[in-house]
Amino acid sequence: MKLRVGVDLGGMSAKLGVVNEENEIVDRRIIPTEKGITFEETIAKLAEGILSLGDVGMVGFGVPSSLMPGTDIVIYANNLGWKNKDIKTELAKHLGDIPVYIANDADSATVGEYFQGAGRGYQSVLMLTLGTGVGGGFIYNGHLYRGGNGCGFEPGHMTIRMDGVPCTCGKKGCLESYASASAIIRELSNSEAPSLKAFIAENGGKPTARMLFDAVRQGNAAAQDILDEYVKCLAVGIGSLVTILRPQIVLLGGGVSAAGDLLYRPLRALMKDNVFGYDVIGCPEIVPATLGNDAGIIGAAMLDHVLI
Amino acid sequence: MKLRVGVDLGGMSAKLGVVNEENEIVDRRIIPTEKGITFEETIAKLAEGILSLGDVGMVGFGVPSSLMPGTDIVIYANNLGWKNKDIKTELAKHLGDIPVYIANDADSATVGEYFQGAGRGYQSVLMLTLGTGVGGGFIYNGHLYRGGNGCGFEPGHMTIRMDGVPCTCGKKGCLESYASASAIIRELSNSEAPSLKAFIAENGGKPTARMLFDAVRQGNAAAQDILDEYVKCLAVGIGSLVTILRPQIVLLGGGVSAAGDLLYRPLRALMKDNVFGYDVIGCPEIVPATLGNDAGIIGAAMLDHVLI
Repeated sequence: MKLRVGVDLGGMSAKLGVVNEENEIVDRRIIPTEKGITFEETIAKLAEGILSLGDVGMVGFGVPSSLMPGTDIVIYANNLGWKNKDIKTELAKHLGDIPVYIANDADSATVGEYFQGAGRGYQSVLMLTLGTGVGGGFIYNGHLYRGGNGCGFEPGHMTIRMDGVPCTCGKKGCLESYASASAIIRELSNSEAPSLKAFIAENGGKPTARMLFDAVRQGNAAAQDILDEYVKCLAVGIGSLVTILRPQIVLLGGGVSAAGDLLYRPLRALMKDNVFGYDVIGCPEIVPATLGNDAGIIGAAMLDHVLI
Repeated sequence: MKLRVGVDLGGMSAKLGVVNEENEIVDRRIIPTEKGITFEETIAKLAEGILSLGDVGMVGFGVPSSLMPGTDIVIYANNLGWKNKDIKTELAKHLGDIPVYIANDADSATVGEYFQGAGRGYQSVLMLTLGTGVGGGFIYNGHLYRGGNGCGFEPGHMTIRMDGVPCTCGKKGCLESYASASAIIRELSNSEAPSLKAFIAENGGKPTARMLFDAVRQGNAAAQDILDEYVKCLAVGIGSLVTILRPQIVLLGGGVSAAGDLLYRPLRALMKDNVFGYDVIGCPEIVPATLGNDAGIIGAAMLDHVLI
């Protein structure tokens, strides 16, 4: 039985995993991907790591970048310093004809959750990752949705508020500008509320998304206001995505998704105001993803099942 | 050769057409659907009209309603006064085992444009209809996108402006509230500009979407402001849909879509600010649909090709 290898490619390291028939990770490697070395050197190190795992039958990559339609060329992986890089061709120099599959990292994580996590048993799964940015993936009738021209699904960059906050992408009012961990940090930093400034100072002075939830748990009213607005923006974004896509379930991943009832209870309550036809059709469940960082590895190793 | 019949079901009449192998309408009937008569009576009249066309092999319906996932039951067709109606079962009493396919009317129109209109030759086609509301359809890899739970695609009800204008659907700030013909009429009615009030009075006193474009052509500055804002809102909506779906082409149908360069030139110019990754990936062309009212008939007759 040849091995299935999933690679979750990040700015600091690549996480390699051998995934068995039960979709479990049974062997792992971590390969540093620091910026100092060239693309070719990184690929050589990755190939060495992959081949060290045994008799490899396929390799899947989750990459922090959009991919060029048709060619799977990495358009721009900011964290890796890669621009217009052809991973498949470079890898083939080392791996020969072992099949290689590539997808965006949020897409890979969605595939992992679909096979082995909170999306198991559904055919159409929408996942949003609430981290530094807002990424996302969509499984539609058992296949990874990659867009009609193959260059991906970017739910974090739909506009929820025309003329709103400028986004890192150049647009204004993107979901990412309001529903990412970075948005929480921005609001905490901008807050003039003495109680919240004091709370941040007491906790090291550097705001984090987690700090917002901690402050809310301690009854901080200014933090509650920021959370209320955050949840409202997230509800608008999910509401529009459900109205357009009608997934069977919505998964939330990334750091913020671990916030528990403080996040999910008000979020679910707001869906009736944000999903078209809620009274008749309702809204799919919104639940936390369950695989954490393993989702990307497992999903990458399953890419050949969901790409068409 | 058995006949393919498409039915475009509207509030005033049902338009029936026989569609040949070249996707052309070669025979037509119009059946009144006035509200006074019952659902069962309307279906009986429709069946009579359908059977009068000859030896029918299939019938497709475009219906102005969302459909219940799995069952194709009409949830609510406001213009027909139908709630929870099962067209297929009722029709079968008259048509026996002639296969019947049902889709939302905007979906049917999109299918028509895909086979025979401006979407011909593309595999992934997004269409928005800019009329009383904003409807839409999406062909993805040659199949009609009906949502992961089968209950449809409602791009007109994505939020483009949080906390914005209340929509007829109960949500706030929907694309429909800003990009429909009704939105233009609302803005014309609300305008306090004397020049525009005079223009409307001179033209019968009742604002229409067409009046806006006529006033702009005559150099009316207040009308130009309304048009600028209209186009900006439409660009935001299309930009988000392209960012999420990445169709190969975007078609505009409905009354407003016939406005020509006044609409398309500024709209296309705004896409660079509204599509994620525009510099690298660009934006699909945005063009008018070409079949007009025939799109729905032709699309309905082709539904068996695009439903999975």
